[in-house]
Amino acid sequence: MSTNHQDETNHRTRVGRERSARTEARILEAAMGVFAKMGPDAPKIDDFVAAAGIARGTFYNHFDSVDALLVATSEWTTRELLSGIEDALAGIEGPALRFGVGLRLFFARAQADRVWSLFVGRVWSVGGMELPLRDLEEGSRLGVFRAPSHVATRDMLMGGVREALLRIGNEDVPEDYGTELTRLCLQALGVDARRIAAVLRHELPILGSKEETP
Amino acid sequence: MSTNHQDETNHRTRVGRERSARTEARILEAAMGVFAKMGPDAPKIDDFVAAAGIARGTFYNHFDSVDALLVATSEWTTRELLSGIEDALAGIEGPALRFGVGLRLFFARAQADRVWSLFVGRVWSVGGMELPLRDLEEGSRLGVFRAPSHVATRDMLMGGVREALLRIGNEDVPEDYGTELTRLCLQALGVDARRIAAVLRHELPILGSKEETP
Repeated sequence: MSTNHQDETNHRTRVGRERSARTEARILEAAMGVFAKMGPDAPKIDDFVAAAGIARGTFYNHFDSVDALLVATSEWTTRELLSGIEDALAGIEGPALRFGVGLRLFFARAQADRVWSLFVGRVWSVGGMELPLRDLEEGSRLGVFRAPSHVATRDMLMGGVREALLRIGNEDVPEDYGTELTRLCLQALGVDARRIAAVLRHELPILGSKEETP
Repeated sequence: MSTNHQDETNHRTRVGRERSARTEARILEAAMGVFAKMGPDAPKIDDFVAAAGIARGTFYNHFDSVDALLVATSEWTTRELLSGIEDALAGIEGPALRFGVGLRLFFARAQADRVWSLFVGRVWSVGGMELPLRDLEEGSRLGVFRAPSHVATRDMLMGGVREALLRIGNEDVPEDYGTELTRLCLQALGVDARRIAAVLRHELPILGSKEETP
């Protein structure tokens, strides 16, 4: 194969992959709306096909079933949020401050969009967890977090966050609910009271909207 | 109505109520076994009727559907356990010690019976919560627990416990998993490190078996 030919093939493969990724993002975004409106069990494949404006065959190129799409949608929307939070945390140093302010941003999003909160709480398939886990690990290494068992710590935090999302999705909560949950998570991690107070009064950075940057 | 007649009527009512309560307990105990073996979705009413050795009509005197029985079974089995833990805590004083040792007993039961753990984690309809809540409230009143929002605190703890039950039910966990979860719950409640160490090394009281006392 000549180098030119190879370049062209690579180019075509790349373009094809990009198109496929765009289609998948389009299905996922449409799916978020469909699930939000119809719940997790009622929608049929045709509902997603119509909402995304694609052919039935295109759907099956990307997802096997509504259940697979449900899980993928939850993973996609949480990955988008956690990566947005990671961007917003740029310039904030220290694992307790980063993890705590990140949690506050996460709950702020949940409280601003209760349908989203209920959806994620119910499906509970979370993408992008490697981002907060990095701060968790650094905090343990530095002794800022004092929680010997990693598995137990993760279960405690994830369980608390999930229950909070369900609460936010199901009923009116006080405005400071997410802040209080953040306090409890940091306390669970064994962060000292002075440092927690600093996290809770730290100015909340702006969470960028993905739609603004095409 | 003569006093004698009234006494007799009261006696008959009481006997009827006691018989009904015994039948209900019999159905619930049988149901726990059926759900454990067949999962929460597969069993039909006839499976419970056969396991409890009752008539179909008797079943419907107590429960409307398999779903109602599922919820009632989860509430019944957790209420039995929490009330057993309450008995075992007799003589142990102080909200942190009572709450923490109670949690250790709860997780010990879960680790000893993973099918039960998965069942309760999945159905998640908990009875007898007023018992640990009493210690939680007393601890807040005394300043042993430092967690301003009651709703957020309850969500954090319940979420952590539920996630732990699912973990225990789904995979092998280290022997000290329940102890580590207890540590995290007490840390979340803002209990100081010295007191937590005392809770974790306190001798675990014996959890009485209901079957031994007919």
